[in-house]
Amino acid sequence: MSGNLQPVVVLVEPQLGENIGMCARAMLNFGLRRLRLVSPRDGWPNAAATATAADADAVLESAEVFATLDDAVADCGRIFATTARTRSLATPVAGADEAARLAVDWTAGGSLVAILFGPEASGLDNAAVAKADRILAFATNPGFPSLNLAQSVLLFASEWAKACPEAIADRALAPSGGGDGGAPVARRELDSFLGRLENALDERGFFLTPELKPTTRNTLHSLFSRAAPSDRELALLHGALTALLRKDRRGTGD
Amino acid sequence: MSGNLQPVVVLVEPQLGENIGMCARAMLNFGLRRLRLVSPRDGWPNAAATATAADADAVLESAEVFATLDDAVADCGRIFATTARTRSLATPVAGADEAARLAVDWTAGGSLVAILFGPEASGLDNAAVAKADRILAFATNPGFPSLNLAQSVLLFASEWAKACPEAIADRALAPSGGGDGGAPVARRELDSFLGRLENALDERGFFLTPELKPTTRNTLHSLFSRAAPSDRELALLHGALTALLRKDRRGTGD
Repeated sequence: MSGNLQPVVVLVEPQLGENIGMCARAMLNFGLRRLRLVSPRDGWPNAAATATAADADAVLESAEVFATLDDAVADCGRIFATTARTRSLATPVAGADEAARLAVDWTAGGSLVAILFGPEASGLDNAAVAKADRILAFATNPGFPSLNLAQSVLLFASEWAKACPEAIADRALAPSGGGDGGAPVARRELDSFLGRLENALDERGFFLTPELKPTTRNTLHSLFSRAAPSDRELALLHGALTALLRKDRRGTGD
Repeated sequence: MSGNLQPVVVLVEPQLGENIGMCARAMLNFGLRRLRLVSPRDGWPNAAATATAADADAVLESAEVFATLDDAVADCGRIFATTARTRSLATPVAGADEAARLAVDWTAGGSLVAILFGPEASGLDNAAVAKADRILAFATNPGFPSLNLAQSVLLFASEWAKACPEAIADRALAPSGGGDGGAPVARRELDSFLGRLENALDERGFFLTPELKPTTRNTLHSLFSRAAPSDRELALLHGALTALLRKDRRGTGD
């Protein structure tokens, strides 16, 4: 995804450089790269921000700095204001997941989308919130709602990446299941192991009655089917069964 | 929601008290309250953790401390291991949203669910991951994947609250009735079976070299963890192992 098609994260009057650096990290964790700063308290550039950002320093280097919020969002077609407080404004409220989906839709529709985050101590003022198309409110525990700045950015960024998987499309998550290279064995190979196990159990009088045998067999099949062993694991199971059927080297059998 | 019906967040060998405090905050932000610590580096209680947790100190005060991971998950029926690295184990991988939905489902089914987070510097080791039913992997930007401990906890907690909105509403859920006889056994029971299996294999010379033993053991643990046997199934596994160790009634051993 081109950087021009991403929303911009706008930090309004951020106070601590460390927090700006942490925000840059949180953005890049989920593929967001466009940062704007409105009147950062300690000026710009900020050594503490750079130190904290570490390998996300490219986000800081390309950050755009503005004197006012109006300037920062002048080219934006859609604006979200992040706030925890209840407001008297009629602006619709969206959770992070809905906000992320809207941001993706609006971006696809050609709008530059801004997500505003307020100063650490006070949050966005009413004038800033009044500019917004939507209030972005995280669905936190009402008894303990407060998130820090970078955590708020992280939660939005995480939802944005889910809503826009192309953003981190080269991500290398292993597919669910069969991970050690590693797909589950073909059913016939698992059945072959299960047949061997069943014969060994049968020879040792495990199945107490013929009537119970199908149920017990089904239980064993279900168990090993759920485990979905890979080739390597099935070889290990065969080896373990062979070993168990051996006489104890140290035991009384010899 | 009763605290008994929540997953437990297990921090394995956490290093910095500040991070433990931040994890407590992240948990409480989304209504998670059950924290377990395995061998925290700087001991417990930890003043830095308390200072950082601030109003989430109740989470720290009720935290349970264990000497080993085995102890910490002994009563857990389902385990998630958080890790960013690709593993050779076949354990299925879930993103935070899927993991949260599974955790809610499994909890409703009567299992105590544990979410493991590793030490800051190194993450979880392979033996810890081998205990897991699922690997929890955050879908981060592969070019910048690294999340800190509290951020990982925050992202899981946020998804958990979405999957279980009653948690934040603080409404009491009806007790689930502790499963239908089909819920997975507690971890200590599975460990007891795995220990018995391992001893039998050891006595029969299955582990060819001491160097290979941990890998082989991890593979077996992962396999049976994924299968998540119920009480009845574990009893069957014990019975089958007993039978396999018997001399063949019809064979040459007698």
